[in-house]
Amino acid sequence: MGKDALTGTARRPDDLVVGVDYGTLSGRAVVVRVSDGKELGSAVHPYAHAVMDTELTAGPCADAGTPQQLPPDWALQVPGDYVDVLKEAVPAALAAAHEAHGVHAGDVIGIATDFTACTMIPTLEDGTPLSETEQFADRPHAYVKLWKHHAAQPQADRINKLAHERGEPWISRYGGLISSEWEFAKGLQLLEEDPEVYAATAHWVEAADWIVWQLSGRYTRNACTAGYKGIFQDGEYPSMEFLAALNPDFAGFAKGKLSDDVAPLGGLAGRLTAEASAWTGLPEGIAVGVGNVDAHVTAPAANAVEPGQMVAIMGTSTCHVMNGTELHEVPGMCGAVDGGIVAGLWGYEAGQSGVGDIFAWYVENQVPGEVTAAAAERGVSVHEHLTDLAARQAPGEHGLVALDWHSGNRSVLVDHELSGLVLGATLTTRPEDVYRALLESTAFGTRKIVETFQASGVPVTEFVVAGGLLKNQFLMQMYSDVTRLPLSTIVSEQGPALGSAIHAAVAAGAYPDVRTAAAAMGARVENAYTPNEDAARVYDELYAEYSTLHDYFGRGTNEVMSRLKALRRRQVATRTGAAPEGAES
Amino acid sequence: MGKDALTGTARRPDDLVVGVDYGTLSGRAVVVRVSDGKELGSAVHPYAHAVMDTELTAGPCADAGTPQQLPPDWALQVPGDYVDVLKEAVPAALAAAHEAHGVHAGDVIGIATDFTACTMIPTLEDGTPLSETEQFADRPHAYVKLWKHHAAQPQADRINKLAHERGEPWISRYGGLISSEWEFAKGLQLLEEDPEVYAATAHWVEAADWIVWQLSGRYTRNACTAGYKGIFQDGEYPSMEFLAALNPDFAGFAKGKLSDDVAPLGGLAGRLTAEASAWTGLPEGIAVGVGNVDAHVTAPAANAVEPGQMVAIMGTSTCHVMNGTELHEVPGMCGAVDGGIVAGLWGYEAGQSGVGDIFAWYVENQVPGEVTAAAAERGVSVHEHLTDLAARQAPGEHGLVALDWHSGNRSVLVDHELSGLVLGATLTTRPEDVYRALLESTAFGTRKIVETFQASGVPVTEFVVAGGLLKNQFLMQMYSDVTRLPLSTIVSEQGPALGSAIHAAVAAGAYPDVRTAAAAMGARVENAYTPNEDAARVYDELYAEYSTLHDYFGRGTNEVMSRLKALRRRQVATRTGAAPEGAES
Repeated sequence: MGKDALTGTARRPDDLVVGVDYGTLSGRAVVVRVSDGKELGSAVHPYAHAVMDTELTAGPCADAGTPQQLPPDWALQVPGDYVDVLKEAVPAALAAAHEAHGVHAGDVIGIATDFTACTMIPTLEDGTPLSETEQFADRPHAYVKLWKHHAAQPQADRINKLAHERGEPWISRYGGLISSEWEFAKGLQLLEEDPEVYAATAHWVEAADWIVWQLSGRYTRNACTAGYKGIFQDGEYPSMEFLAALNPDFAGFAKGKLSDDVAPLGGLAGRLTAEASAWTGLPEGIAVGVGNVDAHVTAPAANAVEPGQMVAIMGTSTCHVMNGTELHEVPGMCGAVDGGIVAGLWGYEAGQSGVGDIFAWYVENQVPGEVTAAAAERGVSVHEHLTDLAARQAPGEHGLVALDWHSGNRSVLVDHELSGLVLGATLTTRPEDVYRALLESTAFGTRKIVETFQASGVPVTEFVVAGGLLKNQFLMQMYSDVTRLPLSTIVSEQGPALGSAIHAAVAAGAYPDVRTAAAAMGARVENAYTPNEDAARVYDELYAEYSTLHDYFGRGTNEVMSRLKALRRRQVATRTGAAPEGAES
Repeated sequence: MGKDALTGTARRPDDLVVGVDYGTLSGRAVVVRVSDGKELGSAVHPYAHAVMDTELTAGPCADAGTPQQLPPDWALQVPGDYVDVLKEAVPAALAAAHEAHGVHAGDVIGIATDFTACTMIPTLEDGTPLSETEQFADRPHAYVKLWKHHAAQPQADRINKLAHERGEPWISRYGGLISSEWEFAKGLQLLEEDPEVYAATAHWVEAADWIVWQLSGRYTRNACTAGYKGIFQDGEYPSMEFLAALNPDFAGFAKGKLSDDVAPLGGLAGRLTAEASAWTGLPEGIAVGVGNVDAHVTAPAANAVEPGQMVAIMGTSTCHVMNGTELHEVPGMCGAVDGGIVAGLWGYEAGQSGVGDIFAWYVENQVPGEVTAAAAERGVSVHEHLTDLAARQAPGEHGLVALDWHSGNRSVLVDHELSGLVLGATLTTRPEDVYRALLESTAFGTRKIVETFQASGVPVTEFVVAGGLLKNQFLMQMYSDVTRLPLSTIVSEQGPALGSAIHAAVAAGAYPDVRTAAAAMGARVENAYTPNEDAARVYDELYAEYSTLHDYFGRGTNEVMSRLKALRRRQVATRTGAAPEGAES
């Protein structure tokens, strides 16, 4: 056994860890070498029940062939599917690592996980999901409420209204908006729609923590979801008075059903149980790391956890995470949490509600057949084809400017009644022109977030990209030009799973903390893109136009977008004879 | 021979007239019964040289197989092609009328014509086009400059700048903007680019008047083009001082090369010559009407020449013509001309630069292949298919508002640096939603024009539609709803040719004036569409949004559109190494 010169931590050269990334439709396990983060083998296992968003395909009724229908905006999952990932994907990843590199499960010293969030499970005292009890197996509310279960919007609206009315101090940590996706809104929906299941719920558990409970036999609440999704700030949850004002029966929710024993990220949650050892093929008693969230765990995978490094996970939407040494109130954040990304630093999360999904919407709805055909002939995707065409232009040549609000705006305006805009079209405007303007609009949205951090005392010095969109090199160069920041790209193609493996290594004591482990095991290509000053100057002009429109439409001068959405709801309701969605009751 | 009870004018029941409509690519002749306007036969003859906009396909060089290239934005024609219409289409129309109805050329008592405008021909003293002289047959500037010859923009810019600097009184009659298409801009280009041809030009003749000269042997200047295209106001042209300030050699342009002997519309230009009789097969000596313009002559064809009746010729763009009893300064008009539509009334012309061509641009550039395929499967055009899908929605349901400025804005803002906008898109916005928003935007543009007339003391009480777009019944209903005006539609499918025939009947003395003749021979379906109040109320809400954006972007608060166009020009020039189009020299 050697000694690590820098850290003094005991570490053998053959030590391995396992990271498991729980996504929306499947789980991915990866076997990683502790010394350098090399990924030796991985495997994916899809959830048998996937996402249940139209009918309940689990439970006795479903088994009898008569599944219950689910209301709109519901999204449920089955906890057993998560355990199946441990039983299938972990052994498969170990087998793959053995076959490729001759390594052995016996050298694994720890396992850690990350999960979608906020994904909530109602359990008995011992962690048994209520959906697995005979009594509640046919009750939709007994199942996992997946992050994208959006049926608690009325509850979220009430939480936000009341928090602002009462001047709750925590609301500003979340940009003034608690999401319908989060723990309190989903919990209040549970209470109000199925009080029996609510009453039977001993613990209202993040799936991120439930899976760790299954591995270690202990319930450990992680600092990340507690802070970002559980409104746990400065050591406490929203007060009983606040909860009682929402609904008298909700008064004891936090004290009764949420744990306030919050463990730091990178911490040791416990030791792998015999049962979990049997599921996974991993040695009993190895370290099990504290739970975590997919986006946040990506920062160490990119070795980008130092203050000043903004990590953007760019996919259908973009999630920005970064650390700062002090708490600053940054307008429009999704959350600012002490130790929310790594222990000892303030973790900031921001977001753009629509990015890749705006490009996808455009390609599906606004691109003519001849462009689609030309892409097919070249053997590239429509996105690649339009990107190539757009890249032939000089910046500003299309004469367009767009607002990237097709899915509303999270940071920095926190307004989901905003909508998209394309300005400047002429009779010579081509499909690739609008496509480029939409790409640019998301870059401008990012610059707006970066500038808001800077102006709030949280400097951003490097922009680190993970996620599917980093394959678009033209887009990456544009982001560097627009933000005038050096842009780095994550090396790993399975960033979250690697990030979990890094946490496993820290939990196992192989590194003293996540920052040190990230430096050894995580990796990014630094300066993969650097700003082109000629382009940056032109983008400055377009960004000035974007900013003027951003403030005019987004800060109350002309609230046409929300009026149009209200009119749309009213007119759809009138035509269909239904009550308007989102109408005041 | 009977006597008309109302007018006392001599008219035989079998009397016929011929109207000839000269379009951009062909001429159409129609034989019409004088008593009731019934169209008995028609024929079309295309111009052999069509539009010469890339090379000069006439003259010795072209005959030798080495045609000259033309610069960008040029558009020329060959005068002989117009005479060919007389030789081909008129006899063919007579033959068709004879075959279908047994009528005879001997019963034709008059002929009149309408033309594209401003379309200019440089001629010798006797009317011979310079392009038909040996000396100039290879000189592009000796040919007809078609209305859409746009290469005189620098000259137009100078005319406008100087007119505003000098406070010329006539500039306000044209909404502050003299077009590059018009007589003075094209004349100044001729002078400055080919002084020899300019010097040899005895007359600078509107094609509308030149064809009448060919029929009658006399040069008669019509009040319509003199006023709308020739800046002939209150009996005079722009002053010698003004012209000299543009270019000293241009000082004598109006006095020397333009006729100020202006004849009223519906007047008698002369009698058919023996030569023209031989071309056409019409009786020598019959009445030849004063020339006219296609849009303006459509008003009598729809029997809509009374004050309050706004006639909209809706195609790729929309031209609005209407009469008023007095002169009012209506902001943003294309022109206000005494007797410009019918003698004795003030004729107002307004315009929307882009209407059908915005819809066409959208269908070509922003509609996915599956929509195109669905239309094909139904056997309808993409326009019809999108219209049908859009019509299923309630107004306001798409949540969008658009600005119809893809081709700039003529009335009422007179600003061609404006551009298109679509606001309100979300990830659920479909192709038919945007299509409908674009349809609506043009209706809102029309309402803006109607309201501007009203506010300026020129009441609009009926909206009369001619042109290709009247086939779209959904669009027509929308225009009625948006403007809250009863909407009438022209009956004739060859409105301009019928309008010319009406003028022929007046010139021949069959009716005392155009208003009387229009009542007998022209026709429209009155109240073809009437406003639906429920829809109108919702459109009011959308129109309020349109108006706010119209003023914000169109009246100087945020000049982002012109800045983007300037940036576009600069960046195209930078990339291609060329001088920016429209750059200051």
